[in-house]
Amino acid sequence: MIIDCHGHYTTAPAALQDFRDAQIARFEDPALPAAKPPEISDDAIRESIEENQLKQLRARGADMTVFSPKAVGMGHHIGDEAMSLVWARVCNDAIHRVVTLFPDNFIGVCQLPQSPGVPIENSIDELERCVNELGFVGCNLNPDPSGGHWTSMPLTDRSWYPFFEKLVELQVPAMIHVSGSCNPNFHATGAHYINADTTAFMQFIQGDLFADFPDLRLIIPHGGGAAPYHWGRYRGLADMLKRPPLPDHVMKNVFFDTCVYHQAGIDLLFKVIDIDNILFASEMFGAVKTVDPETGYNFDDTKRYVDALDLSDQDRRKVFEGNARRVYPRLDAALKARGK
Amino acid sequence: MIIDCHGHYTTAPAALQDFRDAQIARFEDPALPAAKPPEISDDAIRESIEENQLKQLRARGADMTVFSPKAVGMGHHIGDEAMSLVWARVCNDAIHRVVTLFPDNFIGVCQLPQSPGVPIENSIDELERCVNELGFVGCNLNPDPSGGHWTSMPLTDRSWYPFFEKLVELQVPAMIHVSGSCNPNFHATGAHYINADTTAFMQFIQGDLFADFPDLRLIIPHGGGAAPYHWGRYRGLADMLKRPPLPDHVMKNVFFDTCVYHQAGIDLLFKVIDIDNILFASEMFGAVKTVDPETGYNFDDTKRYVDALDLSDQDRRKVFEGNARRVYPRLDAALKARGK
Repeated sequence: MIIDCHGHYTTAPAALQDFRDAQIARFEDPALPAAKPPEISDDAIRESIEENQLKQLRARGADMTVFSPKAVGMGHHIGDEAMSLVWARVCNDAIHRVVTLFPDNFIGVCQLPQSPGVPIENSIDELERCVNELGFVGCNLNPDPSGGHWTSMPLTDRSWYPFFEKLVELQVPAMIHVSGSCNPNFHATGAHYINADTTAFMQFIQGDLFADFPDLRLIIPHGGGAAPYHWGRYRGLADMLKRPPLPDHVMKNVFFDTCVYHQAGIDLLFKVIDIDNILFASEMFGAVKTVDPETGYNFDDTKRYVDALDLSDQDRRKVFEGNARRVYPRLDAALKARGK
Repeated sequence: MIIDCHGHYTTAPAALQDFRDAQIARFEDPALPAAKPPEISDDAIRESIEENQLKQLRARGADMTVFSPKAVGMGHHIGDEAMSLVWARVCNDAIHRVVTLFPDNFIGVCQLPQSPGVPIENSIDELERCVNELGFVGCNLNPDPSGGHWTSMPLTDRSWYPFFEKLVELQVPAMIHVSGSCNPNFHATGAHYINADTTAFMQFIQGDLFADFPDLRLIIPHGGGAAPYHWGRYRGLADMLKRPPLPDHVMKNVFFDTCVYHQAGIDLLFKVIDIDNILFASEMFGAVKTVDPETGYNFDDTKRYVDALDLSDQDRRKVFEGNARRVYPRLDAALKARGK
């Protein structure tokens, strides 16, 4: 089977965003009434999925998407912790409804109720709710809840450790994924996302996170940011910083997805990164929703790029399915429980 | 001839850094005596170059380096404007002495006296001094003088325009190059540099800078950050943002260097970026000074990677010489004045 490990519910019914807008308006003006929880029918959810992600999933020949709330919508920098918690629960519940309606095609990954300056421990309850009660298999962890001001500590700092302990205990990985940017220097999907990926990777080289958490698994999306393109730089920097070589120091625990939107980029990714570290993904529908005039296909139809590679059947299975089942043990367990 | 468009004086005699240390100490404790200008003999400068950059330049088969002060040392986030001005002048004067001693092998590019919150106009005097009096051919422009907090406006904001007007008037390009990072999230050469490159490129897509300055030339170093690896993403984002296609909108004015420290990265760069937009460079000795155990050669010996490409003689001449002479008209004029 073919598992896309990176999809967001960017096509949710408008009521979800209406709720968020009302929530933000109330935060700015407490005289306003509290935002009412969105009322969305099963039919509206079905339609939002069937006409979009599911249709394209089938058209592109994939089977399942590891599905999480819209990343740019998480907006951890907006409002406060209480507001982030309500919003995370509403978004995660929406994902749960999609997964319940389409159990063969979607499995959940949660948004966390992060907020600038708030300890990451405070996100553990929602993580546990999503994993233990809703059957989610992972989470999106924002390394910069400030939205482009980068006011937290690096991911290798001990302040993040209680959360990593919980991830290991629950056997769920985290995708390192920022949200929107409120810094005018950084376009969200064109700069902030890619910078965060690159930044996280370099933090892992500098730190010793995986010596402390040998069972922690983290996915760096968007093809690992700039890391594969500058792989020589990172190998050299590890050496200069007296860190162990990357295969031992970082790449037992870190995985890159295939959200790289052209053939030459995918070619490079597979050339320099070990096949065991690459997870198929498209982020459909995400940053780039248009058709590439050079190919006639959607930029984010990444399966076409992977199909064009000269991979053995074994390697192809790893990228499309095996690696995802290994990195997300609860996904593997859920599939096995269904005889898959 | 072979021109390396990106070299920093990272091997300067210790007296230069001693001066900087004294300058910083005085800023922190005004009771200390003012830092004395560094006294460096011609022999010390000769030795610092002959044993390092010049030796390697010759060993690697290149002829000339476009040479500027150590980038991570610019430290625009340290001290105040007055301190940045003194430091920029001292560093630029050191470059001028190198160029005077080795006119066949080095030509100058200047550091600017930027400081957080200070208008970029205030850097024009030092730019003019370096270009008009010292014969420099370009400058390094820091898009984030705050050193990793990104508190200025994007490069496309009109606050930068007076400086761009001066660049066009003087016919000198700027390399977009940050300095050190005082944000613990960003390793300087492993994250901040690459993020800044990616960020600048996306700003150029969002903005209309080159419609306003058709003759402005900017170099994005380190192979364009993440841009070539994510070229499909950027082409797609330009489309989604209703911007013109990149060749017209950005790539008439923006150039990437070859500071990408492995063969696969260089292969990608030349595959997706037009040959007219690529300038040979190594940043020797810069971020990565060690030998790649996989090749037995220095990571930053980028000429080897370019030599390994299947380029026509014409394209090779463009990358090694022609493009640099076009992007740096004053370099071209200086070479022509010497019959080269």
